[in-house]
Amino acid sequence: MIKLSVFAGSLVLALMPLLAYAAEPCLPCHQEKSPGAVAQWQGSAHAKAGVGCEKCHGTDHEKMVKGEAKVGMKVCAPCHKKAYEEHRASRHGMGLHSGWGCTRKLPDRKPGECRFCHQEGDEAPRSDVQCARFLKQSPEMGEIGCNYCHSVEDACDSCHSKHMTDLKIVRDPNSCAKCHMGPDHPQWEMWQTSLHGTLNASAGRGTGPDCQSCHMPKGSHNVSIGLTMNSGGVPYPAAKAEPARAEMVNICSGCHAPSFARKELERNDQVRSQSLAILKEAEQVIWDLNDRGLLDPMPADRPPHPLSGPRLVTDSQMLYEDTSHIERLFFKMKKYDYARTVKGAYHQNPAYTHWYGNAELKMDLVDIKSEASRLKERKKGAAPAGVSEQQGAEDELKALKNKFDRGALSEDEYAKEKGKVLEKMR
Amino acid sequence: MIKLSVFAGSLVLALMPLLAYAAEPCLPCHQEKSPGAVAQWQGSAHAKAGVGCEKCHGTDHEKMVKGEAKVGMKVCAPCHKKAYEEHRASRHGMGLHSGWGCTRKLPDRKPGECRFCHQEGDEAPRSDVQCARFLKQSPEMGEIGCNYCHSVEDACDSCHSKHMTDLKIVRDPNSCAKCHMGPDHPQWEMWQTSLHGTLNASAGRGTGPDCQSCHMPKGSHNVSIGLTMNSGGVPYPAAKAEPARAEMVNICSGCHAPSFARKELERNDQVRSQSLAILKEAEQVIWDLNDRGLLDPMPADRPPHPLSGPRLVTDSQMLYEDTSHIERLFFKMKKYDYARTVKGAYHQNPAYTHWYGNAELKMDLVDIKSEASRLKERKKGAAPAGVSEQQGAEDELKALKNKFDRGALSEDEYAKEKGKVLEKMR
Amino acid sequence: MIKLSVFAGSLVLALMPLLAYAAEPCLPCHQEKSPGAVAQWQGSAHAKAGVGCEKCHGTDHEKMVKGEAKVGMKVCAPCHKKAYEEHRASRHGMGLHSGWGCTRKLPDRKPGECRFCHQEGDEAPRSDVQCARFLKQSPEMGEIGCNYCHSVEDACDSCHSKHMTDLKIVRDPNSCAKCHMGPDHPQWEMWQTSLHGTLNASAGRGTGPDCQSCHMPKGSHNVSIGLTMNSGGVPYPAAKAEPARAEMVNICSGCHAPSFARKELERNDQVRSQSLAILKEAEQVIWDLNDRGLLDPMPADRPPHPLSGPRLVTDSQMLYEDTSHIERLFFKMKKYDYARTVKGAYHQNPAYTHWYGNAELKMDLVDIKSEASRLKERKKGAAPAGVSEQQGAEDELKALKNKFDRGALSEDEYAKEKGKVLEKMR
Repeated sequence: MIKLSVFAGSLVLALMPLLAYAAEPCLPCHQEKSPGAVAQWQGSAHAKAGVGCEKCHGTDHEKMVKGEAKVGMKVCAPCHKKAYEEHRASRHGMGLHSGWGCTRKLPDRKPGECRFCHQEGDEAPRSDVQCARFLKQSPEMGEIGCNYCHSVEDACDSCHSKHMTDLKIVRDPNSCAKCHMGPDHPQWEMWQTSLHGTLNASAGRGTGPDCQSCHMPKGSHNVSIGLTMNSGGVPYPAAKAEPARAEMVNICSGCHAPSFARKELERNDQVRSQSLAILKEAEQVIWDLNDRGLLDPMPADRPPHPLSGPRLVTDSQMLYEDTSHIERLFFKMKKYDYARTVKGAYHQNPAYTHWYGNAELKMDLVDIKSEASRLKERKKGAAPAGVSEQQGAEDELKALKNKFDRGALSEDEYAKEKGKVLEKMR
Repeated sequence: MIKLSVFAGSLVLALMPLLAYAAEPCLPCHQEKSPGAVAQWQGSAHAKAGVGCEKCHGTDHEKMVKGEAKVGMKVCAPCHKKAYEEHRASRHGMGLHSGWGCTRKLPDRKPGECRFCHQEGDEAPRSDVQCARFLKQSPEMGEIGCNYCHSVEDACDSCHSKHMTDLKIVRDPNSCAKCHMGPDHPQWEMWQTSLHGTLNASAGRGTGPDCQSCHMPKGSHNVSIGLTMNSGGVPYPAAKAEPARAEMVNICSGCHAPSFARKELERNDQVRSQSLAILKEAEQVIWDLNDRGLLDPMPADRPPHPLSGPRLVTDSQMLYEDTSHIERLFFKMKKYDYARTVKGAYHQNPAYTHWYGNAELKMDLVDIKSEASRLKERKKGAAPAGVSEQQGAEDELKALKNKFDRGALSEDEYAKEKGKVLEKMR
Repeated sequence: MIKLSVFAGSLVLALMPLLAYAAEPCLPCHQEKSPGAVAQWQGSAHAKAGVGCEKCHGTDHEKMVKGEAKVGMKVCAPCHKKAYEEHRASRHGMGLHSGWGCTRKLPDRKPGECRFCHQEGDEAPRSDVQCARFLKQSPEMGEIGCNYCHSVEDACDSCHSKHMTDLKIVRDPNSCAKCHMGPDHPQWEMWQTSLHGTLNASAGRGTGPDCQSCHMPKGSHNVSIGLTMNSGGVPYPAAKAEPARAEMVNICSGCHAPSFARKELERNDQVRSQSLAILKEAEQVIWDLNDRGLLDPMPADRPPHPLSGPRLVTDSQMLYEDTSHIERLFFKMKKYDYARTVKGAYHQNPAYTHWYGNAELKMDLVDIKSEASRLKERKKGAAPAGVSEQQGAEDELKALKNKFDRGALSEDEYAKEKGKVLEKMR
């Protein structure tokens, strides 16, 4: 009797997919219209578990056709709770906030986009994080150039693909490659040619770890475990960095002695702070030119920054367009060179640390200083002979006032510097 | 009886390769001199079908030794008619015309090269397409740097390798990679890290399509099916673009809903026309400097352009050498940045579209405007004080005349602009 | 009786690893502390042959913990004599000498580093080769950015990994990739997309050769066989080049007709000498500016070169930091563009030869000439009107004297050039 009921139970389990198919009203049509998607679903764990079309896509066909019924993360969350929560706690869960920007100011927004910032029916955005670089793009460039990757915040299919559930796809570092590459963060490229990546290619994952080995330990969806800087490369304060470092050392110690791992990581911390200092030096040169009114063009003479208006911006909201030559050199230093040096070091890649990173950082500093010298000389050249000494002192005083106004000089320092100039004029 | 003759027929078929070998007079020598080539041929479908050395190489051994008996496409055509015709109808069939350039003007041409442009014995070339950039190269650089790839026009072994016929070689996207890569058209790189390419790596060709899947559908040798711009990135006119687009949507619809495919492609068309506008803006800056005589050096003061002489060239015949700094910036925009943005979009690669493409396009525009400002100020700086106002107006009038002469101003516009300058002078 | 002793002998052989394990006093502790290393050793040929921890690491545990007991090449040499000698005869055996530089002048050197230049207990270094670029780095950047690769001189585990002996790792071109890549010598990248590399991917190593096929023929550890230029790209003199060329043609002839191989290589020699000429042209422009005192900043006005002090350096000790814009352009030409052109040609990669190489070389020459023109005009602009003609002649005379002093003009040439200037002044 028991045997029989077990058999009957097994039969039901075995037939479940078929039952699911039979009950799936979308199939007849979609086997015609999107055979690829149907076939992928049929081979998926979802089909086997009886999770059909409506479960994820809902029933409002009109909305689907209009592209307003995207299968966001909240659709997956009820069944995949742990992954959902880990994801949201990680930097991936911030994807849109760092890249999407506020859509309010752009005309022609597509329906459905609003939900990224607004609760349905709520005019006030849930978050006011905006991205100046996104705001400068056309809707089309914003879509393929920004949101293709940054929508990872709300889209499991960023990594998992749409209708397949095969874990070999998402456990392959290639699934990370399609976003984590390029001039601004070539993690894919630097891993591939690191000792880890090359051993991965020659001797397999057990010997050469991949992205997932270190950044998704034990399958965690919190990809930010063990990181000690924010996504802009700014180091965490010690109180936040230390426990994160301990986590990473723990991950490394799957293969390495913890003392070795800690020493390596600390060496890379040094590379990071040295590189930040180079960046800072360049940034000062630009602010000094701004104080002296020598940027060409000056912020007031170009289209206003989408968030800060007609002011110099060199922080994480810095633009690479509608700017001056020297600022665009600094943009490259900040977004490309610094990232390659630091990420190159943490990924143990000599060529990225030194040549794609450090050498570019220092060569761009050379170019920035040279351009600054040119801009200063231009000013001098433009002044009629005779008046130039008097003019020079006045310019100096104005630059000092600007420096004081933006808080780069204390009241004491300002007084002292002003004194020096006045002394010389006498 | 029937059975016996079938058997006899099979026997002949089975022995044919052996017979071919036996009849192959080149083997005894070449098994010694080029064992690799012999072994590859022996493993090929050609050997099995009894296609021996002479069939492709002819019998004039002296010519072969001198390198004058290359196995061009016409040798393969009689047996591979469909492939030959598809190839000739495609952009591959134009390979030499776009890259080879006319060899008449170069000294020391090698015998055999003539046939690319001339029918044997005919002095007039079949085509007058020339490539200025090719004409500037040394014969050696022209050979490895240009013709290695552009000889695809006339050489099946560009893709098929020389003595092997194994289709796995030519169906591998690697066979495309060796030409379709690099700063000017990194299709290989952008595919590899696109969703298509990464799925190809993790889940195979059925899930992630490769070059051949989309550009050689059903094994067609017409690689230009479905393209809507020429090889320089200039969009086709609507009448030519629309049927091509329909072809591409049809290819996409092997996996995607046609409406989705069309929408994606149309988004990328927008990216293309926006990028063209940025390019155009930069080009105008350069022509304006040319009108004002401010390029450094001016076209008249440098080695003449091989096709256009001492004139500014910014079209597809633009050079990257013997030019000015600002023009070489524009060359990068046109050949590298624009190509990466547009091809990046059509290949669904966010990093190529945005960072390797769009961001570079906009940063180079910043640099071009900055250099233009520098060149204009230099001129002003050079003029002795007092005469500068009068001089400025005269320069302006001359620039307007140049603009009018090259057709960038209508007669009416010219008169109006001239009027404004004269008004100011009064 | 004989049979029995053979059996007994086999038994001993078979048990040896077990005996080795039993005798391995480090295991109990290290199975806990570094399980990865232990497992790799257990699977290695070393374990099978009874080569245990102490054999390589010694017995001074304190030293090991401090990182002062690195397993250098001399530890491996007694057993791997042939490989050791071949390695030392090759460019790999010079790794540290070309990249490490002298550590004497740097503070805070770590114990153990000294041995790279000094015999133990000997104050005089074995070699005085130093690297100016290394001397400019922080100890941390020097470690990951320089020595990670250059320590190949003394470290078999650069390629062989630490505890594994699996030859599939070291026969995989990936083991070369981790150093032979990047902007300055992208051999890995150019091989991958060459005909050789793409055939390797599609048809295997037998058809498409890899790094080891050509540069480590028959497993030789002399990786410099057949090279005809030094590591800076300077061609060997004929007497040294010719036998090396014969070696390489011999390697090629495993697949190609020797006459074909030689012709190809000679074509690439031409590309090399043409590219050297372009480099030389740019170098002259910079030395001329230096003679005229027009570099910005001049060598005397910047931190002194670590080896040459306040003097212009454009040879292999050239820096990319603390220099002028125009010199840093030349650094790129020399280290990146030239290397890509020449190595691209020898690796049969059209895109590296032409676009990443030759085109960059020529575009950087354009930029260098343009910057030189700007620097000269700046000087003129700065001179007060009226005195400029007299001043110009004096500058010219001073530049000629500098040129003569550095040996770029013979006494006769100097006299003649001086005469011309004086003639004009009259």
